[in-house]
Amino acid sequence: MQIGVVGLGRMGGNIARRLMDDGHAVAAHDVNAEATAALAADGATPADSLAALVAALAAPRAVWVMLPEGDITARAVAELGGLLSPGDVVIDGGNSFYKDDVRRAKELSGRGVVYLDVGTSGGVWGRERGYCLMIGGEEEAVRRLDPIFATLAPGRGEVAPSPGREGRDPRVEQGYMHCGPAGAGHFVKMVHNGIEYGLMQAYAEGFDILRGKGSEELPEDRRFHIDVADVAELWRRGSVVSSWLLDLTASALAADPRLEGFEGRVADSGEGRWTIEAAIEQATPADVLAAALFARFRSRVDHPFSDRLLSAMRFQFGGHKEAPSGGEVSKSRT
Amino acid sequence: MQIGVVGLGRMGGNIARRLMDDGHAVAAHDVNAEATAALAADGATPADSLAALVAALAAPRAVWVMLPEGDITARAVAELGGLLSPGDVVIDGGNSFYKDDVRRAKELSGRGVVYLDVGTSGGVWGRERGYCLMIGGEEEAVRRLDPIFATLAPGRGEVAPSPGREGRDPRVEQGYMHCGPAGAGHFVKMVHNGIEYGLMQAYAEGFDILRGKGSEELPEDRRFHIDVADVAELWRRGSVVSSWLLDLTASALAADPRLEGFEGRVADSGEGRWTIEAAIEQATPADVLAAALFARFRSRVDHPFSDRLLSAMRFQFGGHKEAPSGGEVSKSRT
Amino acid sequence: MQIGVVGLGRMGGNIARRLMDDGHAVAAHDVNAEATAALAADGATPADSLAALVAALAAPRAVWVMLPEGDITARAVAELGGLLSPGDVVIDGGNSFYKDDVRRAKELSGRGVVYLDVGTSGGVWGRERGYCLMIGGEEEAVRRLDPIFATLAPGRGEVAPSPGREGRDPRVEQGYMHCGPAGAGHFVKMVHNGIEYGLMQAYAEGFDILRGKGSEELPEDRRFHIDVADVAELWRRGSVVSSWLLDLTASALAADPRLEGFEGRVADSGEGRWTIEAAIEQATPADVLAAALFARFRSRVDHPFSDRLLSAMRFQFGGHKEAPSGGEVSKSRT
Amino acid sequence: MQIGVVGLGRMGGNIARRLMDDGHAVAAHDVNAEATAALAADGATPADSLAALVAALAAPRAVWVMLPEGDITARAVAELGGLLSPGDVVIDGGNSFYKDDVRRAKELSGRGVVYLDVGTSGGVWGRERGYCLMIGGEEEAVRRLDPIFATLAPGRGEVAPSPGREGRDPRVEQGYMHCGPAGAGHFVKMVHNGIEYGLMQAYAEGFDILRGKGSEELPEDRRFHIDVADVAELWRRGSVVSSWLLDLTASALAADPRLEGFEGRVADSGEGRWTIEAAIEQATPADVLAAALFARFRSRVDHPFSDRLLSAMRFQFGGHKEAPSGGEVSKSRT
Repeated sequence: MQIGVVGLGRMGGNIARRLMDDGHAVAAHDVNAEATAALAADGATPADSLAALVAALAAPRAVWVMLPEGDITARAVAELGGLLSPGDVVIDGGNSFYKDDVRRAKELSGRGVVYLDVGTSGGVWGRERGYCLMIGGEEEAVRRLDPIFATLAPGRGEVAPSPGREGRDPRVEQGYMHCGPAGAGHFVKMVHNGIEYGLMQAYAEGFDILRGKGSEELPEDRRFHIDVADVAELWRRGSVVSSWLLDLTASALAADPRLEGFEGRVADSGEGRWTIEAAIEQATPADVLAAALFARFRSRVDHPFSDRLLSAMRFQFGGHKEAPSGGEVSKSRT
Repeated sequence: MQIGVVGLGRMGGNIARRLMDDGHAVAAHDVNAEATAALAADGATPADSLAALVAALAAPRAVWVMLPEGDITARAVAELGGLLSPGDVVIDGGNSFYKDDVRRAKELSGRGVVYLDVGTSGGVWGRERGYCLMIGGEEEAVRRLDPIFATLAPGRGEVAPSPGREGRDPRVEQGYMHCGPAGAGHFVKMVHNGIEYGLMQAYAEGFDILRGKGSEELPEDRRFHIDVADVAELWRRGSVVSSWLLDLTASALAADPRLEGFEGRVADSGEGRWTIEAAIEQATPADVLAAALFARFRSRVDHPFSDRLLSAMRFQFGGHKEAPSGGEVSKSRT
Repeated sequence: MQIGVVGLGRMGGNIARRLMDDGHAVAAHDVNAEATAALAADGATPADSLAALVAALAAPRAVWVMLPEGDITARAVAELGGLLSPGDVVIDGGNSFYKDDVRRAKELSGRGVVYLDVGTSGGVWGRERGYCLMIGGEEEAVRRLDPIFATLAPGRGEVAPSPGREGRDPRVEQGYMHCGPAGAGHFVKMVHNGIEYGLMQAYAEGFDILRGKGSEELPEDRRFHIDVADVAELWRRGSVVSSWLLDLTASALAADPRLEGFEGRVADSGEGRWTIEAAIEQATPADVLAAALFARFRSRVDHPFSDRLLSAMRFQFGGHKEAPSGGEVSKSRT
Repeated sequence: MQIGVVGLGRMGGNIARRLMDDGHAVAAHDVNAEATAALAADGATPADSLAALVAALAAPRAVWVMLPEGDITARAVAELGGLLSPGDVVIDGGNSFYKDDVRRAKELSGRGVVYLDVGTSGGVWGRERGYCLMIGGEEEAVRRLDPIFATLAPGRGEVAPSPGREGRDPRVEQGYMHCGPAGAGHFVKMVHNGIEYGLMQAYAEGFDILRGKGSEELPEDRRFHIDVADVAELWRRGSVVSSWLLDLTASALAADPRLEGFEGRVADSGEGRWTIEAAIEQATPADVLAAALFARFRSRVDHPFSDRLLSAMRFQFGGHKEAPSGGEVSKSRT
């Protein structure tokens, strides 16, 4: 079927191409004219404005907005709301805050325009592997756009459905799910990313312990020099901790076992924060997910004020000087 | 080749059977005569004592000990140490503490007996999927027993080696690794389980947030009723959080979406604790792994003394009564 | 000077009485007529409505609202906003969310009414000890009401100012502080309570470790039976951890050393949650404050879904049964 | 009474002087002859070796060892064990590991020498304020040395005993406590320090949030510029979070409000680590105390391997570049 795609960066461009690969007709727009032209070269109908994009589509229209989170998405959705007609659908495939979705869906419904929020996981691998889609909004629009979702999703592939799923929604087993009303898609995607942070931090801490076991600060008879790149590769086979993130870890460590190409300043993209806020709103304990988030905050600051305050207190009560860098590894008794 | 197996429970029995399925000759012993008989019925040579087991093997012997952690393993290894001859090998495939391995290897080497510690992951699925093996000890013995390890390991299967591994140890890509000297195998397995706790807790918290979003304690207009069994199935396809643990989660939720068959008292098997102790010994921060461990501790106590002390303090300074069960979900401002 | 007080519960009643004790004239209102009458018996001018309260005060008026957080405060402030005249002041002494303060101050300023937010710490001990006041809003109004704040605050007492404070705001050394514009008072009070949660949890965990060292689940030769009530009393003298919260802990443990009068369901009053949200908004790591909050959430739920999910996963991969209550204390190696 | 003091650094020297101030006779030894001479100038009997020290004391002797933790203390105690006679007492006033105490007490008791472990809190302020003493070992020796402990302890001072303490051990109310058999004193001191880390971290995080609220990375209309030095001073009066650590915080911030004199590399002295290990051994959850410990570990490493691994994974799945330093404060929605 026909669809408009707004935002042709890494994610949006690949989504458009995966759709065209499967026979869908794509009208494409990006504020960067080169990105639009590149997609046109691959077969899309180029549009040099949102108005042109809407004009290039036949009603009932569907426009997939795939922009960096926040204000840019908000402006594009608002502008599209003014351009589209009753019965048309706007899809926000980015990482918007789910409470914004609830509000936007209500605003657009006043004009008869349907808003779907589609949490989209898959990163740069999505064009090839397919995207895991978490959809919120009205069921009728979700049904109508089923061919789009079915194309983008990975499909069943080699992943057999879990026993006991007989009679359950078969779309889920293709890799896309209608999670609930507007906002529910991004809510599920938000928690997905919150979990992702926790998983990543669990691996990171574990590999740090393995690496640190070879530290020269430990007494020699208590050291093991463990090849962490080999361990990551090993655990991909038959272990309880095998996962796609571990596959990526193994690739990263095979290429650069000491990770010297990275400094360790880790961004967070919003969902991890919102996950903790949602947990707090519901009074659900989320110790691991919060600790994972805070580790990222801390990675971006050389010495938080809190650390300096600890040093200042220690100096006050004990006259303690500050510790040397990295020291004191081996102080524990054996 | 020929090998003795001591301990024929869920793990040891399956290991013995996987070895025999691949043509190895197994002599088997369990303190439970029925378990020994059952394995004999499957083709093993039964032995009614450790001495009989040793007698049933030709030198240089190899005996795989697969017993519940702790004192039982210690006693079996010590007794075998007295029965075996120089050049023989004892393998501890259980979850022993790596510092015990270091000590045992030294003790046995005085008698010319080689000690290998083999961390073994795979659980009840291992007979079919193979076991991921983390091996510590002398390289020569590891080489000699290569056919055993190769059989038990999952093999390369459909998991392509990571790019950049050219020239690295090919055994790793078959699912077994010589991690270092005695103790290194269980050290790697220990961290593996520490990571496992962290991964499990990350999923658990995330699914709890999804489930709690439908709580009747939230105002109705802020609820989403999300089918967590479907979400788990969905994320198995194309998402960043797909993993074997997620596969298991999806199975568990498909069978019992509200998990009413479980109370929530979660055991820990030692490695999670030792992982934190190792982190502390090295001064490696391990916030997520520690939080995951403490969540298990807490799951087994109805109300720790610490909670009662909080209530007592609040009563002292504010005259506050205690909270009702589960309450206050929705107190946060919108 | 003259002031109106709205809300005559534990906090508001004591505040009114401390003001009258120091010679201020109080007009008092509570929806509960008995509370109003009780305060009138102590010398206040009773008012049976907000309108009557406003009528009882001479311009420029000041009304201290001391109501349980949330909607009730919001309604009272809004109603007062309609009754008061330009130049009058409304003080919210409760635990409102600081972003609500910012909004309310702006709304009221449209009518010429000044809004002050005053975070008030001291609990049931405040009438005697005085209240620590954290004030947000316009400096001019703060100056005008100085006699009120000076009366309510504890005063310098026996607490000598820190060296190096020469030339700094002397009000701070009396126990009240103008923290910044509207919202800043409650922001500081919010963080105060966030810290309070962290401090309380640190003591609670420590005393739990002391108590648990005598647990019968530990091998007898590794137990100490430590009198935690004595320890709390001891640390009040000369130790680094002495504090007012420790004083309260010692009182609670002296009265009930096993805290059998408490179940351990610990409420949280909103500020702890907002503190974490503020930390997240600023990307400030707050591991300890968050863990303290989550401990309270967890204390109110018998077994969170997350715990059941852990059990379910363990059953899936290892066939593990659940742990018995409280068990496994002594599994660690010595 | 008469006592020997070994180790005349900041702690040991002050202890010796506080004893002499109260009329006790001190024989003093330090490996640094200048330290010994300085104490002799203040009235102590100097000893140039442990043997000379023992010779300078009349039986039954008491020797207080106040050395930096670990091997130095172990050697001094062992040497004293060989020099002392049955009925003599060795006191370890340092921060030894409590399991070492248990072992040492057993070893010395074979020679009739009594070992007391005395956890000593008070830091550089102890000479003036007195030391809070946590004593482990045989009651008879504790009774005999009561004059020593009574002198070192702060005494009741202005701290009224908690109501309900009638009939309880009055020594506790003087600031010293016989906590149990050998090891119990250092166990209680260990937990004391564990709590101390938690309290310090709670303040540190809270003040960091206050400071960060004025960050230029936040949108201007969401900033408050809060004077954290004033806040610390304020909270010392009438607030729930007042404490001795807060007094120190206020002093530190009054002297250097931005704490520019500190880099933020925070040492840990062993007890915090052992506290977590003890918690793990008992299966007691200790989330806050562990998080406080890990914050110190992290403060001493510029970018742990774990952070680099997170960056590497993000690059693998999303092609994400690393974050700039300190960035992304204001990304959360309002």
